[in-house]
Amino acid sequence: MPPTHLEFRSDNCGRAAPELIEALVQANVGSVLGYGGDEITKQLNAKFSTLFEQPVQVFPVPTGTGANALALAAVGTPFGAVYCSPEAHINTSECNATSFFGGGLKVTPVSGVDGKIDPIAFEVAILNSGKGQAHKNQPEAVNLVQATDMGAVYSVSEVKAISTIAHANGLVVHMDGARFANALDTLGCSPAELTSKAGVDLLSFGVTKNGGLLTDAIVVFNPAVAKNISFHLRRAGMIWSKMRFASAQVLAYVADDLWLRLAKQSNTAALAIAHKIEKLEGVKLLAPVQANELFVQMNPKAIDALIADGVLFYRRGTNLFRLVCRWDTTQNEIAQLIELIDRHRLKI
Amino acid sequence: MPPTHLEFRSDNCGRAAPELIEALVQANVGSVLGYGGDEITKQLNAKFSTLFEQPVQVFPVPTGTGANALALAAVGTPFGAVYCSPEAHINTSECNATSFFGGGLKVTPVSGVDGKIDPIAFEVAILNSGKGQAHKNQPEAVNLVQATDMGAVYSVSEVKAISTIAHANGLVVHMDGARFANALDTLGCSPAELTSKAGVDLLSFGVTKNGGLLTDAIVVFNPAVAKNISFHLRRAGMIWSKMRFASAQVLAYVADDLWLRLAKQSNTAALAIAHKIEKLEGVKLLAPVQANELFVQMNPKAIDALIADGVLFYRRGTNLFRLVCRWDTTQNEIAQLIELIDRHRLKI
Amino acid sequence: MPPTHLEFRSDNCGRAAPELIEALVQANVGSVLGYGGDEITKQLNAKFSTLFEQPVQVFPVPTGTGANALALAAVGTPFGAVYCSPEAHINTSECNATSFFGGGLKVTPVSGVDGKIDPIAFEVAILNSGKGQAHKNQPEAVNLVQATDMGAVYSVSEVKAISTIAHANGLVVHMDGARFANALDTLGCSPAELTSKAGVDLLSFGVTKNGGLLTDAIVVFNPAVAKNISFHLRRAGMIWSKMRFASAQVLAYVADDLWLRLAKQSNTAALAIAHKIEKLEGVKLLAPVQANELFVQMNPKAIDALIADGVLFYRRGTNLFRLVCRWDTTQNEIAQLIELIDRHRLKI
Amino acid sequence: MPPTHLEFRSDNCGRAAPELIEALVQANVGSVLGYGGDEITKQLNAKFSTLFEQPVQVFPVPTGTGANALALAAVGTPFGAVYCSPEAHINTSECNATSFFGGGLKVTPVSGVDGKIDPIAFEVAILNSGKGQAHKNQPEAVNLVQATDMGAVYSVSEVKAISTIAHANGLVVHMDGARFANALDTLGCSPAELTSKAGVDLLSFGVTKNGGLLTDAIVVFNPAVAKNISFHLRRAGMIWSKMRFASAQVLAYVADDLWLRLAKQSNTAALAIAHKIEKLEGVKLLAPVQANELFVQMNPKAIDALIADGVLFYRRGTNLFRLVCRWDTTQNEIAQLIELIDRHRLKI
Repeated sequence: MPPTHLEFRSDNCGRAAPELIEALVQANVGSVLGYGGDEITKQLNAKFSTLFEQPVQVFPVPTGTGANALALAAVGTPFGAVYCSPEAHINTSECNATSFFGGGLKVTPVSGVDGKIDPIAFEVAILNSGKGQAHKNQPEAVNLVQATDMGAVYSVSEVKAISTIAHANGLVVHMDGARFANALDTLGCSPAELTSKAGVDLLSFGVTKNGGLLTDAIVVFNPAVAKNISFHLRRAGMIWSKMRFASAQVLAYVADDLWLRLAKQSNTAALAIAHKIEKLEGVKLLAPVQANELFVQMNPKAIDALIADGVLFYRRGTNLFRLVCRWDTTQNEIAQLIELIDRHRLKI
Repeated sequence: MPPTHLEFRSDNCGRAAPELIEALVQANVGSVLGYGGDEITKQLNAKFSTLFEQPVQVFPVPTGTGANALALAAVGTPFGAVYCSPEAHINTSECNATSFFGGGLKVTPVSGVDGKIDPIAFEVAILNSGKGQAHKNQPEAVNLVQATDMGAVYSVSEVKAISTIAHANGLVVHMDGARFANALDTLGCSPAELTSKAGVDLLSFGVTKNGGLLTDAIVVFNPAVAKNISFHLRRAGMIWSKMRFASAQVLAYVADDLWLRLAKQSNTAALAIAHKIEKLEGVKLLAPVQANELFVQMNPKAIDALIADGVLFYRRGTNLFRLVCRWDTTQNEIAQLIELIDRHRLKI
Repeated sequence: MPPTHLEFRSDNCGRAAPELIEALVQANVGSVLGYGGDEITKQLNAKFSTLFEQPVQVFPVPTGTGANALALAAVGTPFGAVYCSPEAHINTSECNATSFFGGGLKVTPVSGVDGKIDPIAFEVAILNSGKGQAHKNQPEAVNLVQATDMGAVYSVSEVKAISTIAHANGLVVHMDGARFANALDTLGCSPAELTSKAGVDLLSFGVTKNGGLLTDAIVVFNPAVAKNISFHLRRAGMIWSKMRFASAQVLAYVADDLWLRLAKQSNTAALAIAHKIEKLEGVKLLAPVQANELFVQMNPKAIDALIADGVLFYRRGTNLFRLVCRWDTTQNEIAQLIELIDRHRLKI
Repeated sequence: MPPTHLEFRSDNCGRAAPELIEALVQANVGSVLGYGGDEITKQLNAKFSTLFEQPVQVFPVPTGTGANALALAAVGTPFGAVYCSPEAHINTSECNATSFFGGGLKVTPVSGVDGKIDPIAFEVAILNSGKGQAHKNQPEAVNLVQATDMGAVYSVSEVKAISTIAHANGLVVHMDGARFANALDTLGCSPAELTSKAGVDLLSFGVTKNGGLLTDAIVVFNPAVAKNISFHLRRAGMIWSKMRFASAQVLAYVADDLWLRLAKQSNTAALAIAHKIEKLEGVKLLAPVQANELFVQMNPKAIDALIADGVLFYRRGTNLFRLVCRWDTTQNEIAQLIELIDRHRLKI
């Protein structure tokens, strides 16, 4: 008999990693300067510069939407266009945040598969954009979601293909790394290989979905493109006065490869489910499972039955649903889910 | 001999109250719905409705700037004016955030003393505003900082005087309660008496400066004036996906009168300093000390000497500086500060 | 031998109708109140209320982009979505103006043919929009271009189909009538039948392209949806102090059916070209010619030859170009164009 | 017995100069490229470069509010501050347009007399602004109204004093020249001496109030500070497609010193009134009359009597009113006004 709740709604439904909370406890000593003037925050740039093998700037921010919108607003103009996948979070789920913070900056979908941007479609979009014509919004940035909103991962060479086109045309490359650690785990490459070495100019560095509490971060590889970002962040109400408590989380997150271990847990869970169900008749995976998300097609009745049995997930259509594994998804949850899918999959 | 650092820069330099961190630990159990759909967050409205003796809506937000700017943007239009004291935080220290989130909404200072708005000046400003004329921005809201940015406190009747004028003219009353607990402690009245019962429509509820970590909140008493606030917050990237960790802090903050006890500690510290130094020749307090801030005038050389001796504070002019006490300011720090002021005050 | 310039670039390349300039001369008498307080401007509402068979408000504005963006900003919120055709002018050619004036308001393309919105795609877009979810921008308005940006015309019943869906879902219906007179001429219906009686809430009333100089207008049928429009316009710098000179143009434009006669001239010219060339081998019309624009497919070499012979038009692709007829396009120009197309059409 | 209407409300109540309308008639020949690609518009830059004795860029715009707000938005950032006189039009009468177009850009009054900025107060404001601190909006531009909103005129050396401070601190100098011709007439200097040679970076070039119809212009002396201005204007709906009709007005306005002759007429009228009434008991001029405006103090009853006798003007307080002379104000109007003021001035 299934539990009341078998949780596969989102990785943001999961717990925080205890290491991050312990870091808060440790940070709560003495008085320090506010707004990032403290010693903990000062470690961020050094720590991340090592991690990314080049000098970087790190700005903790409360949310992924904040990271995306502020990063893009800092590099774009009000009459610019940011290209992205149609499924990109900035296009579907952030309530116009990028256009708002960017003063009108337009989010412009470009076609592709599995939540990725197709490089040819991207190049064509730039060519047809009307560069220099005041009637037309101007190509200014491209947004790559890593892992994508369909659960796939851009390879390093795919990132390079997009960034080469972008830079050749004067565009800035922004990576929405809400699930950046999951992508790294899958690819087995270094953080630098997937970002600065592949042409990424700035990164929304996801923490929340992979064991964080209340903090993500913006990592700037190319400060020349985001000169006013501090003002953007302050003006947006995104610079905490007690910044040490945000910075401590981010430091704990990357210490001792914690982030990669957590991501491996959720990736492994998702792959385990994928391997079991992809061979089942009546079940189809809509996109490759390369991170911690699965997009599953089944008969509507079969999906109804899963819901009735207490499996929690987001339905994305009559015959489509999304499953997300957390860093703390258990073997037991996985086994129960697979059993229930197997039980209901042929219902019509 | 003085310590290297005697901390009086800001209440945001202080530690978090351990109760709030403990609340994070307690909240880190099981999986819950994101974006405020969790059970902890659901307690907020009920708890605060009891606290404020009427139904209210509570929205945790990362910062006080976020609380102020989003509260005002939610009630104003892009062609509106928000009246405030010249010293008000929204006017001096938030890098145009209110105008930004409000699409142009203008922050308009009105004169007064001790960081307060003078009711007569306020009424005159409304009368001269050109209501209904499209050339003129339209009076839409008034912002009261409690305690004020000069360390004073609006009495309940002073709040009522402003809100009566505001409501008679169709304006919304916003209270910036970054130091709301300090004001309550000073006045000895109930939270409701100082807000909804005095005509306040919505409140930036400060937590950070008084023992918080990463969270303040907006409290809405009059939901009719802020119908779209959820969209404003989401679009602003201010709705955490793991909201339970923000809500848990806010609940712990008001549990068992913790917030009032913490405020009493910083208020008492400030008063202790005030009582000692106000009688000293060469030292003058610029405004009544009614919360945890002191604005002190001394000779420039005397101030220089304090700095040289390791006292940390913000200088506001050649002969003016601000001291802020924290909930965790110690008797020892107070004693050392007073001794140093006394030692240097007559330097010329 | 062809002329150096055979003008088919745009209807905005044409002259103003002399009647409109004569109206300026007539308006230049005596002193009057500014910003629309004059007697000429006061005639606008009455005159247009008669024209549209119901009370309307008329606001002259400098440009069609101004009319579209301000009309939509006046009815939408910063977290809203405006649906439109992918080819709609607001989506392709106004440099993010709608998002800018709307504080982030998103322009969201919905598929269809001939520059129209498909009603089924429109309804599906609303259903999938996530109404009430703060993550999602909210459906707030729909934009119909009449005539469309592909030279077709929405029939009255097509307008009704869209507006019925819109109103059933709480959306406002905006018509971009940059070529409204052309559509009326084609349909043979009354202005009211094509707008308010068909569910249109507000209209960008085009003047410039059809004999105007420096003025278009916004016509509001449903003032409840655009309460603050005067402030939007003033704040946008779109209320002339010497408004009489704008209003006089608009009045002259609709006096004695001038606008309909001018539109008939450009429509007739376009149809004459269409009838001649649609039967020619090597020439294909991309969309029905129902107003004064033709979208023509020919071999690239044939198009090159037209350009070489001095025909002026905008190329929209290697084998596609647009021809636009003006109210003052001559029989001679038409004949020469047809002859040149016929001469070159089979070039490969 | 007085006329029904004796017009002294505003210079925007006056007629257009016939020369400008004649220019429209002359421009209405043949077909030309839209959006400023025509030959008439192309003359603007050359003509104004001669007029201002250096290369300049000229952008006709519909209104003075448009000119001011777009000029400032093109040079400022959303977290910037524009300093101006408290009486400046951008501060009092443009419904937040500068903040709106500037994405939050704050209009910050600096004290002074007669509608001018005091250079010392200006320098102090910059010094206290918190340059480089993300909490503070950043000093980015200064706005000088010429003639001022109190009817006075900045001398060339006064302009230089402000611009020297501005440039030393990295600020851009914008002149709101709504009554620029009036100032030139008073000072007897050249257009260049009052602008680029005095440190002005860009100018709102007023036409409307001094014989124009529907057009003012932005003149850019220093293009490096306003690189994206074309996009700002297009996005703002301020680039007419039939630009030739705007450009023709601007060219006619400056041809044969028409603008200076028109300004002399309104200045002379204002001075004639000033000379007569300044000696009268009971009448006081609030500011020097250096252009075409007078700010007059009289007893409330005396002002009431003027109104009752049909004199049209804007009352600015119980005992204060403004008189504005137009280029077409007649000797007869002046004589009647003076007679009426003399008749009523001692009423109490």
